[in-house]
Amino acid sequence: MVEDKVSALKETPAATDTTARIMDWIGNAAKEAAARLAQADGETKNRALRAAAQAVRDSSAAILDANERDMQAAEAKGLVRAMLDRLALTPERIEAIARGLEEVAALPDPVGRVLAEWERPNGLKIARQSVPLGVIGIIYESRPNVTADAGGLCLKAGNAAILRGGSESFHSSTAIVACLQAGLKEAGLPETAVQAMPGTDRELVGAMLRANAYIDVIVPRGGRSLIERVMNESRVPVMAHLDGICHVYVDGAADPKKARRIALNAKMRRPGVCGAMETLLIDAQAMAAMLPSMLDDLITEGCEVRGDPAVCGLDPRVVPATEADWSTEYLDAILSVKVVNGVEGAIRHINMYGSHHTDSIVTEDAATAERFLAAVDSAIVLHNASTQFADGGEFGMGAEIGISTGKLHARGPVGAEQLTSYKYIVRGDGQIRP
Amino acid sequence: MVEDKVSALKETPAATDTTARIMDWIGNAAKEAAARLAQADGETKNRALRAAAQAVRDSSAAILDANERDMQAAEAKGLVRAMLDRLALTPERIEAIARGLEEVAALPDPVGRVLAEWERPNGLKIARQSVPLGVIGIIYESRPNVTADAGGLCLKAGNAAILRGGSESFHSSTAIVACLQAGLKEAGLPETAVQAMPGTDRELVGAMLRANAYIDVIVPRGGRSLIERVMNESRVPVMAHLDGICHVYVDGAADPKKARRIALNAKMRRPGVCGAMETLLIDAQAMAAMLPSMLDDLITEGCEVRGDPAVCGLDPRVVPATEADWSTEYLDAILSVKVVNGVEGAIRHINMYGSHHTDSIVTEDAATAERFLAAVDSAIVLHNASTQFADGGEFGMGAEIGISTGKLHARGPVGAEQLTSYKYIVRGDGQIRP
Repeated sequence: MVEDKVSALKETPAATDTTARIMDWIGNAAKEAAARLAQADGETKNRALRAAAQAVRDSSAAILDANERDMQAAEAKGLVRAMLDRLALTPERIEAIARGLEEVAALPDPVGRVLAEWERPNGLKIARQSVPLGVIGIIYESRPNVTADAGGLCLKAGNAAILRGGSESFHSSTAIVACLQAGLKEAGLPETAVQAMPGTDRELVGAMLRANAYIDVIVPRGGRSLIERVMNESRVPVMAHLDGICHVYVDGAADPKKARRIALNAKMRRPGVCGAMETLLIDAQAMAAMLPSMLDDLITEGCEVRGDPAVCGLDPRVVPATEADWSTEYLDAILSVKVVNGVEGAIRHINMYGSHHTDSIVTEDAATAERFLAAVDSAIVLHNASTQFADGGEFGMGAEIGISTGKLHARGPVGAEQLTSYKYIVRGDGQIRP
Repeated sequence: MVEDKVSALKETPAATDTTARIMDWIGNAAKEAAARLAQADGETKNRALRAAAQAVRDSSAAILDANERDMQAAEAKGLVRAMLDRLALTPERIEAIARGLEEVAALPDPVGRVLAEWERPNGLKIARQSVPLGVIGIIYESRPNVTADAGGLCLKAGNAAILRGGSESFHSSTAIVACLQAGLKEAGLPETAVQAMPGTDRELVGAMLRANAYIDVIVPRGGRSLIERVMNESRVPVMAHLDGICHVYVDGAADPKKARRIALNAKMRRPGVCGAMETLLIDAQAMAAMLPSMLDDLITEGCEVRGDPAVCGLDPRVVPATEADWSTEYLDAILSVKVVNGVEGAIRHINMYGSHHTDSIVTEDAATAERFLAAVDSAIVLHNASTQFADGGEFGMGAEIGISTGKLHARGPVGAEQLTSYKYIVRGDGQIRP
């Protein structure tokens, strides 16, 4: 219905005006859907999620066809291998999408939780209770599975979603959105609770960023240039992941075996994730005893190590680090290594060069650990564990829409619970204010 | 020290460049102060607040002198009476400022609360713990008491504050900031934890709105044009109060005595506060029996009533309402009154015309009340109580920096607790991610 209006509109000449009107229609439909979703009970929303999972399985062939069209266009455009891999769907990946929706259905209902309640001396009973945020705009790059993950998580928390995927995944995403809408329909919920922006025109992204009359929060997912564009242009509040410059600090009182295992895992398990260690800090007191074997592990595994002069002196394979290395997120098998003076030196370095994402200390000294955990100003601080645990799933939160590096509203993994707001419910018996 | 640098800078010629450098210095000083404040214990911050209160009392004469300068300039500029009244300080108002700081000191510490904790199957122990937000920018109009209220509340929650008061209150605010800084100094905390922008140049506001490298959140307090400028221009996240178009809905099953008391109080106790009722909705079933006496109360108390045709027919003193009345925040002794069809009609009207601030239902029917409380999408919904309770103090939250009409981070009254973020603290024993 909205789609009909939209295609009629797209034929009119004035493009910008048309874009604004498309946004008005989609925005209004989303607000209406959000109002209905906010009143739906948890079981109805879960039924929609499970029906959407079944629709994904039933439409497997159609989704693969759509994906094949995207892949051919992407190959013709000469996309690099890594991007093609992110874009490609297989029967296994489609099954994973369906299972993901079912897992979201199985999560506890994040709406209607009583977050606090108390009574006032005048007899007023006050409760703070979680409610959906409203309408969430998601702007993402070419991973088609984000369509289902983000749409499903928004629905779980009672929010309407407006999705804008990368142009490369347009057909795949459209096919997946159809499955989510089929699930909504089957549960008697408005299909407009999950909408895709109609087309790949960049101007449609601009329209979303100006749509503060309709959209309560924008979640961008993708590379740094996308995030920066969204953060700079958006008139809608943004919940975003900027950088993951994560550190492991190996203290003088570290257990050498733990330090070695954690450093290798934090960097090399998956060097391209946001929770991967980018800089290893080592206490001057531990350098001689612990660092050589750690460097050898990393270099043997194929990691390029860039060190300060002291580190370079330990192993001829280490190349000299420049000042820029301390604030670089490599997202690759590259690591910078620096010697610091104890935990205070580590805290200073991390708070100055880090991105307030995820940082870990390895030590057997409890007081040193507590000092680090308190003073490092990051979303996630760990003691004796790998930074690669920075993930909503590993936290037991179920699916996540991303990790927030901001401090407002949600910090760290953003799951269904973080996609809610709250309201105050006040029950009285005729009280007036003196 | 920062002040010395700033006054040296102000003599250089290139104004915009100078503004940017002033912002850099103040911003850096605030970040450093915030890092120290984040590590201060509750008692140290409370000592600073109590010492600041004492400094306010000791400096009463100097504050009154400064205020006299502001008042003379304001009178010369021909400011209206209401603004002069907001600007004026008296010994009683200065004592109230001091007492306000002591009351903030007496609040529970909002930092370090364990918001949730759990253990993962792999043995990782995860805690979500409240931490300060960081640096808070407050842009406000000419009430000098906001300087102390906002600065004190930020300090309580471990945040550094950058204050930009209205030009009319510049001398008064500067004198109060000096007291807050004296309190910080006495407690051994950095004086730069509370800074005022140096001067009344509008360009300094622009600099704050661009300072996302230093400021974590901007809280504007003032009239609609200020709030709109801040929301439109800010590159820093904003927590703001926009409109308070509050409703009371009197249901057919209302207790007439409660309805009469609540309606009169909700409008006339203080017609100019954001929680004042602007529209009274009455169930068609209750109109004939309940509305005449309610209208008479209001009109007798000096309220202008604008009604729909049915309401006009009940009392010749009622003037016809126009469509614009349903979305107008009068902040004055004016009220619009409309007849609706039961609770569903009321919900539709409120969600369409209201501002999602504060809305109340008067009814003795529990199911009707629950329907209203669930379906009205507002920060505060009340049953059988006056909308004038929309206030952090009345909620028992202690002082508030304002009421947020946004849904992200904080909704409704913003007290010390809402001026915090959180971090995840993860304790392991050598865990790596498989």
